[in-house]
Amino acid sequence: MEKTLKQLAQEAGVSIATVSKVVNGRDEHISEATRKRIRELVESSGYRPNAIAKGLKEKKTNTIGFVLPDISNPFFPEIARGIEDEAKKYGFAVVFCNTDNDVVREESCISFLRSKMVDGLIFTQTTRESVFSKELIGNIPVVVVDRGIDTNSKNIGKIYVNCMGAIYDATCRLIKQGCEKIAFISANLGKERDYRYEGYEKALKQYKRTVDSAMIFKNDYNEETGYQGIQKICRICRIDGLVCGNDLIATGAIQALSEGGWKIPEDIKIVGLDDVMFAKYLSPPLTTIAQPAYEMGKEAAKMLIRHITNGEPLYSKELPYEMRVRSSG
Amino acid sequence: MEKTLKQLAQEAGVSIATVSKVVNGRDEHISEATRKRIRELVESSGYRPNAIAKGLKEKKTNTIGFVLPDISNPFFPEIARGIEDEAKKYGFAVVFCNTDNDVVREESCISFLRSKMVDGLIFTQTTRESVFSKELIGNIPVVVVDRGIDTNSKNIGKIYVNCMGAIYDATCRLIKQGCEKIAFISANLGKERDYRYEGYEKALKQYKRTVDSAMIFKNDYNEETGYQGIQKICRICRIDGLVCGNDLIATGAIQALSEGGWKIPEDIKIVGLDDVMFAKYLSPPLTTIAQPAYEMGKEAAKMLIRHITNGEPLYSKELPYEMRVRSSG
Repeated sequence: MEKTLKQLAQEAGVSIATVSKVVNGRDEHISEATRKRIRELVESSGYRPNAIAKGLKEKKTNTIGFVLPDISNPFFPEIARGIEDEAKKYGFAVVFCNTDNDVVREESCISFLRSKMVDGLIFTQTTRESVFSKELIGNIPVVVVDRGIDTNSKNIGKIYVNCMGAIYDATCRLIKQGCEKIAFISANLGKERDYRYEGYEKALKQYKRTVDSAMIFKNDYNEETGYQGIQKICRICRIDGLVCGNDLIATGAIQALSEGGWKIPEDIKIVGLDDVMFAKYLSPPLTTIAQPAYEMGKEAAKMLIRHITNGEPLYSKELPYEMRVRSSG
Repeated sequence: MEKTLKQLAQEAGVSIATVSKVVNGRDEHISEATRKRIRELVESSGYRPNAIAKGLKEKKTNTIGFVLPDISNPFFPEIARGIEDEAKKYGFAVVFCNTDNDVVREESCISFLRSKMVDGLIFTQTTRESVFSKELIGNIPVVVVDRGIDTNSKNIGKIYVNCMGAIYDATCRLIKQGCEKIAFISANLGKERDYRYEGYEKALKQYKRTVDSAMIFKNDYNEETGYQGIQKICRICRIDGLVCGNDLIATGAIQALSEGGWKIPEDIKIVGLDDVMFAKYLSPPLTTIAQPAYEMGKEAAKMLIRHITNGEPLYSKELPYEMRVRSSG
């Protein structure tokens, strides 16, 4: 028969709490010698921390799901890292699931994570209200990160950055630097409210500029969109400024402009959004609005786990953005 | 009382397998109408796919752990994506845990994931044999990805790229382009065998060059190491070629060289390793050896899950690398 934690603690001459910490991997503050001794004892005794049986009893798995478009898009790993670092403090594990912003995959992810009995979900950038429907989500608490749309559903917390303000600031910066014809390239959000576009439009209107649809291109949050957008816009218009919905778009736009022989920032000034890790290594280094991705992940995990474990209420929290001025605009 | 899958299938007029697929999120090939109908029925019935109880019965959680240094290092998200895409096909979830290559955090991750009853583990780039010890790992099957060191442990599969060959090819390329003084900047692996360094040394010796320790700098696989390495080496030596242990190092080196007024590739030619997504956007675009990170993740997950579910043997598999010639060298 397997030994109990109590028996193991007696044999090791330590407290039950210490044995528990070691078997549950929350042992960073326990000395290496003690850790090693307890591990050997646990191993030889055949003791297994049975999370499954524990979960069945408590109806909890101490696991949260992280639903995101694509972990290989450089904005999301920072959020993921923040979530995991915070979750670990509370002894929670994080399961991730990529959706590619595809409706069917998104619904499958949710069903899949529910079948794994996650205690809560963190979403990034889903573009639909419908995923929060009762039949899909059930009663699982949800925190959304980096998601612009409004929702009236209860049981949903929010961590976000004011993207309208960020893009408004980016556009104003270009106007103040003397740009006359400022283009906008971003993702096509369909029926969803597009806060980034609204920020661009607000700045233009405030400075009495006309909004020209020939200088606007929307597709996805990726490099191809930036590349195609520049090709399309520059065929028709002579622009001298460009506001991008994220840094990947800016990256593709810079590529297309460089190939076309344009000089940045002399001919065209560019501002991005996110400050992904390589933004400073682009040529020229990208002026962009930094979102605190790591902090967003941490805050989301903290809110969700405190709700799960202590019943603390979910809430909305805005985190600040910050302009990083480099050479592109 | 909750309804059974069978009752639900009868009510929905579909097979039990179809209901099962929907509740377990493996429903991408089922029509939207059917999916919606089943979800509504399942929700109104109060049925819950109880993975916990199922796991207790089968002693399986259909979950694998992914232990990695840092998801925000751009090489790893591609591996993570490959793992998750493949795992999802088999109905397996992926829990990830970042170690920062820190020994204590690494051991904590393993204990933590074991406490979550993962059915198997995928490791990337751990630098120690000791993590595969019996008392730490127990009988959990392991697949290592992108890890150079040899191990004699059973129950360990391997997916790897021949990094010695890759760095050998990179060095030979610079020699053939006329570089006389080729430096090497990489991570310091301590007591572990350094295949990358061996590839560099092998190429120099084959072409009768002397290996000069003043042209070698080792610290971490990050940009700072590249930056510091260049500062240190260029204070003493006049180099005309540089081989980097990964693309982050090359990124930092390019930064330091540009600030120092060196021209790439005219003054110094540079080759990296990995082909991270932004390598082509560096200035100049980086010549590098591509590792198939996504495929490595997929292959590792496939091997591990087939071992867990069908008892298929673990094995070692080498995946091919590929030189991506751009402007830096």
